[in-house]
Amino acid sequence: MPTVKLVSEDDPNPLIQEVFADIKATKKIDHVPAIWRALATHPQHLSLCWTRLKAIMRPGKVDLLTKEIIALAVSATNNCRYCINSHTAATQKLGLDNEGLGEVLAVVGLFNQMNKLADAYQVEPDILPEPR
Amino acid sequence: MPTVKLVSEDDPNPLIQEVFADIKATKKIDHVPAIWRALATHPQHLSLCWTRLKAIMRPGKVDLLTKEIIALAVSATNNCRYCINSHTAATQKLGLDNEGLGEVLAVVGLFNQMNKLADAYQVEPDILPEPR
Amino acid sequence: MPTVKLVSEDDPNPLIQEVFADIKATKKIDHVPAIWRALATHPQHLSLCWTRLKAIMRPGKVDLLTKEIIALAVSATNNCRYCINSHTAATQKLGLDNEGLGEVLAVVGLFNQMNKLADAYQVEPDILPEPR
Amino acid sequence: MPTVKLVSEDDPNPLIQEVFADIKATKKIDHVPAIWRALATHPQHLSLCWTRLKAIMRPGKVDLLTKEIIALAVSATNNCRYCINSHTAATQKLGLDNEGLGEVLAVVGLFNQMNKLADAYQVEPDILPEPR
Amino acid sequence: MPTVKLVSEDDPNPLIQEVFADIKATKKIDHVPAIWRALATHPQHLSLCWTRLKAIMRPGKVDLLTKEIIALAVSATNNCRYCINSHTAATQKLGLDNEGLGEVLAVVGLFNQMNKLADAYQVEPDILPEPR
Amino acid sequence: MPTVKLVSEDDPNPLIQEVFADIKATKKIDHVPAIWRALATHPQHLSLCWTRLKAIMRPGKVDLLTKEIIALAVSATNNCRYCINSHTAATQKLGLDNEGLGEVLAVVGLFNQMNKLADAYQVEPDILPEPR
Repeated sequence: MPTVKLVSEDDPNPLIQEVFADIKATKKIDHVPAIWRALATHPQHLSLCWTRLKAIMRPGKVDLLTKEIIALAVSATNNCRYCINSHTAATQKLGLDNEGLGEVLAVVGLFNQMNKLADAYQVEPDILPEPR
Repeated sequence: MPTVKLVSEDDPNPLIQEVFADIKATKKIDHVPAIWRALATHPQHLSLCWTRLKAIMRPGKVDLLTKEIIALAVSATNNCRYCINSHTAATQKLGLDNEGLGEVLAVVGLFNQMNKLADAYQVEPDILPEPR
Repeated sequence: MPTVKLVSEDDPNPLIQEVFADIKATKKIDHVPAIWRALATHPQHLSLCWTRLKAIMRPGKVDLLTKEIIALAVSATNNCRYCINSHTAATQKLGLDNEGLGEVLAVVGLFNQMNKLADAYQVEPDILPEPR
Repeated sequence: MPTVKLVSEDDPNPLIQEVFADIKATKKIDHVPAIWRALATHPQHLSLCWTRLKAIMRPGKVDLLTKEIIALAVSATNNCRYCINSHTAATQKLGLDNEGLGEVLAVVGLFNQMNKLADAYQVEPDILPEPR
Repeated sequence: MPTVKLVSEDDPNPLIQEVFADIKATKKIDHVPAIWRALATHPQHLSLCWTRLKAIMRPGKVDLLTKEIIALAVSATNNCRYCINSHTAATQKLGLDNEGLGEVLAVVGLFNQMNKLADAYQVEPDILPEPR
Repeated sequence: MPTVKLVSEDDPNPLIQEVFADIKATKKIDHVPAIWRALATHPQHLSLCWTRLKAIMRPGKVDLLTKEIIALAVSATNNCRYCINSHTAATQKLGLDNEGLGEVLAVVGLFNQMNKLADAYQVEPDILPEPR
């Protein structure tokens, strides 16, 4: 159960209205996902979060499916239940099938293991090329 | 400083020799990175780790650059210094420039933030499509 | 479902009775929260944990609301469901409204992002004033 | 060593110039901290991060010292070396002495412990007041 | 709810059949735990994970109860609900009673606290004996 | 570099003197490790931490080597540099050789991987025996 009362999609606050409308238009969905209705308890923060997510989650040098895969990898590493569910759904919508999902999660699992082994043995970085 | 003495590249143990040779051949490098020399203090574990990494880190449904990007996203989320260095170098070698790296890390930062907000407000998953 | 049977509030063990009575008196509540009933499966550990929490969670140089805010920030960063619920309730009782909560969580989200960016780019600390 | 070459404070890119000038003016400092020079390798991301941090890190319902204390609590929980250093310095500048710092970190340590105990025993939330 | 449809224990894929049979024989159980049925959506990954777990989770220099205790300590620190449940059950089956469990979790809680204090004060390692 | 000036072993504060003497006597060492000298900047917190560690880190149902192994598993999972170093040294002193250390870390790595896979697939706990 959320720790705040989710803000209604019909809330009259104009900043909330503007952001909610943009979320639905941008994502081509007809409801506002729960995270945004929780964030709307502080409308300026809602607006900051949405503006930033919208600016980052569009195709650039890195395509959108890869960005959703990164979002899933981060969410699985952090064990965020809400985000694991929504980004798994997003990668599916963009065409990743169960075999592809299995490959993504194999890499996530592998490096959660390797990270801890490198830390546990306190291994120093190998000599690397100059930063660019 | 590592907590174990790194195993020499010339160590005569046949299992270590076999894995070290395969690492150099597979990665087309002429030295064995420090993590594998630390793992070699337990040769069977070295072998298990390398066999598994080799099986996962090859192109499949998901290409190799995307897999290295996932490795970097996981390593940054876990703050593993050794792995951040080596996977940043690997993505560069596979063609990701600083602008692409900036995009990847922007997504990593964004969802480390969004994960904590979704958790902090204890938001329940939206209704999702049936698992496949 | 807890992994141990929660100890009854009427358990006759004298150490448990003493700690449970002190919890209710100190927190001015008429029931023992579930975490303490789980810890009571090892009475000495229960006692160690409660004594320490009681010593730390009282006003000092830092006031109690700020201490509860820190508890919430830590719990959200660690994604501890039980603690997020109880410390959100505690900050509300001490007067933090939804707008204040939104500000607190905005800072929590912001630095979960900035932490990962600083780690990912392996940024070295700027020169700092001498430790005191 | 950073994984990218830190952008010079004199870089001619106008977006970078604008953000760097605003950082120095807002923080009343005469140099640009290293994290912003790393982020500047992707000027739009630099701008997004700074704009957001500036909007959140000003006094509101929650005062600035409390916000810096939250930043330190999050950074210590995540073990981000750069951020621990900079936010410890920031809380000192705002008047927190070593005794106050000790109290803050005592709370951080306490709830990192309590979080794991609540998780480990899989304790369910106590009944809570209705969300507001 | 899992994000994939758990693979049936009767699935005809020969690799899945082989691994499922080995899991049941090795663990002396008559059903396949849910995690393996989820991993079976990518049969090669299922096989890699099971082979590795089977090789590591047998008595060696370190006995099996200690290995299950480590698994529980890691799972509690990471807050993995599925794994906390299964490794608590495994330690119970191997003879750890509630008092022993309380001792294990006391150590887990203690060092989650001490880790963050050592990080927060940025304490450098004391001089250590040479690595072996 | 620590963020506070480490307290001198000769500091005249009687509470600090008492704790420092007890640390040296209990651990049979002739210097005070750095973490306690940092904690001494808040003498009451130093005392709380030491009293609790001393009460937990003694043989009980679980022997001391197993407790140090748990400490190392937690510290590696959290990537705490200071604690990884000191608990690796402690397990060595208590007789764990490199092969034993390799086994311990193999389990740590394995479950850091399995935790993330169980989370990523959102696997529900299997039916478990009743809590005791």
